[in-house]
Amino acid sequence: MIEPRVASGLRDLAPSLMIPRERILESFRRTFGGFGYLPIETPHIERMDVLTGKGAGSDEVIRQIFEVTNKGGTPGELALRFDLTVPFARFIARHVDELGVPFKRYAIGSVFRGERPAKGRFREFVQCDFDIIGTESVVADAEVAQVIHDALDAAQVRQFVILLNHRKILDGLLQSLDLGDRETTVLRLLDKLSKIGRERVLEELQRPIQEGGAGASPSQSQRVLEFAETGRGGVDVLREAEALLSSSAHAGQGIANLRTVLDLLASAGVSEERITIDLGLARGLDYYTGIVFETVIPGWESYGSVASGGRYDDLASLFTTRRLPGVGASIGLDRLMALMDEAGWIEASTTTAPVLVVNFPGTDPVIPFRLAARLRKAGVGAEIFPEPIQVGKQMGYGSTRGHLLAVIVGPDEVEREVFNLRNLVTRQEDKGLSWSVLEDSVQSALEIMEHEH
Amino acid sequence: MIEPRVASGLRDLAPSLMIPRERILESFRRTFGGFGYLPIETPHIERMDVLTGKGAGSDEVIRQIFEVTNKGGTPGELALRFDLTVPFARFIARHVDELGVPFKRYAIGSVFRGERPAKGRFREFVQCDFDIIGTESVVADAEVAQVIHDALDAAQVRQFVILLNHRKILDGLLQSLDLGDRETTVLRLLDKLSKIGRERVLEELQRPIQEGGAGASPSQSQRVLEFAETGRGGVDVLREAEALLSSSAHAGQGIANLRTVLDLLASAGVSEERITIDLGLARGLDYYTGIVFETVIPGWESYGSVASGGRYDDLASLFTTRRLPGVGASIGLDRLMALMDEAGWIEASTTTAPVLVVNFPGTDPVIPFRLAARLRKAGVGAEIFPEPIQVGKQMGYGSTRGHLLAVIVGPDEVEREVFNLRNLVTRQEDKGLSWSVLEDSVQSALEIMEHEH
Repeated sequence: MIEPRVASGLRDLAPSLMIPRERILESFRRTFGGFGYLPIETPHIERMDVLTGKGAGSDEVIRQIFEVTNKGGTPGELALRFDLTVPFARFIARHVDELGVPFKRYAIGSVFRGERPAKGRFREFVQCDFDIIGTESVVADAEVAQVIHDALDAAQVRQFVILLNHRKILDGLLQSLDLGDRETTVLRLLDKLSKIGRERVLEELQRPIQEGGAGASPSQSQRVLEFAETGRGGVDVLREAEALLSSSAHAGQGIANLRTVLDLLASAGVSEERITIDLGLARGLDYYTGIVFETVIPGWESYGSVASGGRYDDLASLFTTRRLPGVGASIGLDRLMALMDEAGWIEASTTTAPVLVVNFPGTDPVIPFRLAARLRKAGVGAEIFPEPIQVGKQMGYGSTRGHLLAVIVGPDEVEREVFNLRNLVTRQEDKGLSWSVLEDSVQSALEIMEHEH
Repeated sequence: MIEPRVASGLRDLAPSLMIPRERILESFRRTFGGFGYLPIETPHIERMDVLTGKGAGSDEVIRQIFEVTNKGGTPGELALRFDLTVPFARFIARHVDELGVPFKRYAIGSVFRGERPAKGRFREFVQCDFDIIGTESVVADAEVAQVIHDALDAAQVRQFVILLNHRKILDGLLQSLDLGDRETTVLRLLDKLSKIGRERVLEELQRPIQEGGAGASPSQSQRVLEFAETGRGGVDVLREAEALLSSSAHAGQGIANLRTVLDLLASAGVSEERITIDLGLARGLDYYTGIVFETVIPGWESYGSVASGGRYDDLASLFTTRRLPGVGASIGLDRLMALMDEAGWIEASTTTAPVLVVNFPGTDPVIPFRLAARLRKAGVGAEIFPEPIQVGKQMGYGSTRGHLLAVIVGPDEVEREVFNLRNLVTRQEDKGLSWSVLEDSVQSALEIMEHEH
């Protein structure tokens, strides 16, 4: 006998998690598709040289790579993807001529990282990425924020705030403070502000460069922090930044970009409460060159961002000389769902079919088969209990699984061509309904239950 | 520069393939769910001992396993799953107490086999599995055939035939011929009938056991073949089998089971043309103990079965002493789609949004943003072209991508609060429609185009 163990750091997803998960993924697909983003898929296995090319992933991510080999294969040649961005860069370099630009794509799939197993961190998790490639338009910047908004809204995430910043605003600030040459370090430190706190960041900013700090003076450090803490807000924050950085043309461009994004989002009906300018948002990565996004859930900030992204100058420079600027974001499905689950926003649901059709002992199973098929044809999910055991036990199964209604046809009912309809929640039962009104009776009973809910 | 290569035997899926693929998967999920099958997911990576336990996979499949290792991991400990059945057996052994039986599940996911790369064969492919566990009822047997039927029908597979047989009928035949002890070999040979032909099968049946044959006499071999070739058909074939095997109680059980399955399917409205008894169907596997299914597309038999399965006595005997009988099937998505593509059954579709909203040069992009958001809210997919380039070029993009309509608002139209609606297929344009009727105009134009199609 072999122990039915899951490999360390991995997990099974039971129906209670999978049912809402499928619902959320379906709302993402519908949202992405509704904006004209096209689905693509790349293999889970990529060539190692593709995944580990310079700049493809951080050193940390590369260290966590899962190598893949089969009999007769060359060791070290293949690996599991650690994100969907590098495969997309490879994909677009390979297919851009046939697909043309602008090209909008989405991809939803598992990625793998051999992280040290810890509570709530898994070695396989799902990313939901979408990008527009081949455009530098601010229209695309705004659209990506709008897609994050509409996707989370469609997934019934009750509250969230999309944080916006622009790399050029931070560039302008650092240049005006003569810290332009230490940008990477400063951004990395700002990104840690909420994690390690103000004092530690100040200390690190002032630590000498050769010791891994930014080598900033006390006043430079203070100004960087003050700016990052200008606070979050709407157009008012942009006005403050404009006043502070009026001499920087670079910062001016970033500010103008964000202003247009706010206008466009407002015109699309996105509520102001859902969008916040955050001048401290750095996203740590050198990768982004324009607008950057993060999305936090008020009251659940400890989960970090559930949807992040930004604009980049050149997606696929590792694979092609063709310059491909773009903007995109990634929604972390597992983190989002863990949060929604803890917040109680996920309706527990343990069945995909609301109706249980009882397999009455002593009745020809042809009857439940026929009635269940009719219900499904009318768009109502209907499950037949496979064994003709005691009706009470079948109802017990229905209640446990979460079925709402049971259709019951015993030998008497067969003779009279009627059925009984039992509400499995209230335990009320309508008796002797004619087979001819099956679909209507069930549909209206379900509608009433839904309204009462 | 790194070459943007896909690993050998793997492939990218571009939108033209992914759009119909998503549509088919969605119809599968809806069908499975409508019968009360619940989604589950297991990791792509499993423990090697789980995958290679005795009887988990054939020797051939085990040889094709992809091993997975990460830094600090133990070599040989982990591997990619090669099917969804072994992970399901592990899953159910682990979770059966909390989930209870009967338990209906479906799972859709990639599996990996390091097969020698060949045309149309990939090392990663998607299986769509569904099973009912914890029941021996014939109702479950019939339901699995019905689910295959409804899923393929929902996926718009224009023609298909589900072939049924029952392991006990073949058992009865072989027992009556005194070949009961060579069953595995005989079934394996019958399974090859369509591939290697009648003569080769006869020869192999008669080859001595010690040389890998079945050691049957010429008359035994003839009778086996004649029986397998009784032909395909409906109840009539069962009647013939009954006459031939009247002395075998075992065969009688199998025949009665198939008879009931035919009755149940008919009562659910499944057309007779879609269901065929095939007494030669062996499915080669020792694994199945009752009904077996295969599904072929008339005219495309060379593709083999697109949906196969059957009843088994004990799913998880490798992992638990608890006996878990069940019945299920697996639809091979990639094979099915390759066939549908070649048959011309897949509607070419290169956009997910039917409407292109033009980003008119010199017009505030706020206008297209607002109009597109209104369309999406009304359930109509609408893509905005990101750059305000020449309108003709934007239309060209729309035609290439497959958009049906373009909404055009230039500076004049902004002033008059109207839009022009261009049919990108006929190139006709309705001019000066009021913004107030945007949703209605677009929806009715799309309906007309759909009807004309």
